[in-house]
Amino acid sequence: MEGANALTFMLSWVSHTDVQDRDYKFLRKAVEEVYEGVECGDGGPFGAVVVQNDQVVVSCHSMVLKNTDPTAHAEVTAIREACKKLKQTELSDCEMYASCEPCPMCFGAIHLSRIKRLVYGAKAEAAIAVGFGDFSADASRGTGFYQKAQLDIKRADSCRTGL
Amino acid sequence: MEGANALTFMLSWVSHTDVQDRDYKFLRKAVEEVYEGVECGDGGPFGAVVVQNDQVVVSCHSMVLKNTDPTAHAEVTAIREACKKLKQTELSDCEMYASCEPCPMCFGAIHLSRIKRLVYGAKAEAAIAVGFGDFSADASRGTGFYQKAQLDIKRADSCRTGL
Repeated sequence: MEGANALTFMLSWVSHTDVQDRDYKFLRKAVEEVYEGVECGDGGPFGAVVVQNDQVVVSCHSMVLKNTDPTAHAEVTAIREACKKLKQTELSDCEMYASCEPCPMCFGAIHLSRIKRLVYGAKAEAAIAVGFGDFSADASRGTGFYQKAQLDIKRADSCRTGL
Repeated sequence: MEGANALTFMLSWVSHTDVQDRDYKFLRKAVEEVYEGVECGDGGPFGAVVVQNDQVVVSCHSMVLKNTDPTAHAEVTAIREACKKLKQTELSDCEMYASCEPCPMCFGAIHLSRIKRLVYGAKAEAAIAVGFGDFSADASRGTGFYQKAQLDIKRADSCRTGL
């Protein structure tokens, strides 16, 4: 699938929504990062935002290609940048807004950083559908890997919220 | 547990072994990184080595404290450095030697980097026993998270190999 089509597919869940509440405001910021990252060619179509006390600490997209670093997913990049900015190795008073359900690596990083709340947009299956590996979805979802994380996880589901 | 005791505990599996084969040679290098990392105070007692064509590409230890980065585990740091050095985002012709069984974040990073073979020393329970979180062991081992990784995984078990 072409990059533009893939992007359209992945963002379809949010295409007709308005910013109706706090979560969508920050999630929309993460989606803006998706567009920016794709335009720059820095990496895949993924964005992540770290929020502390209702303020955006950092807003990042995948830097895998730009940095020649397979670990530089949007979420990992955001954690690194937020920790650097806040000068702390834990983000226990922070939330993460991710454009897509995090892969196991990113989920592990979120856990290790002690982020207290995760809100994501597209399900991992959306990334799989546009050509990313199937490592991200049911490989860990529902397992002890998720259960052990003391983390509030919310999918911003447009159906559930009536958007 | 004090740092010195923790280190002794974690390395007990290798304390009485000699370098008897190729795997142990590189694994010993990873263990040397453990000592170096602890002496420097750069991070936890973990080391990782990336090998390509029987040559060490990079040899790293945890940089979590030094870099104020909870994602800078030894394995992730080694992948980042190796990719930078080799100027490629995949390490499909490389092996990783890790002093301890990788946590889910590191295991995800190993999968994403396409490393073809992983050899590790201490089991994750050793890290848990010395105070690290229990996120690393049975949370993912034996689940689809591991099964989906097309990766040759070997634990350098001193009993099994008669060392």
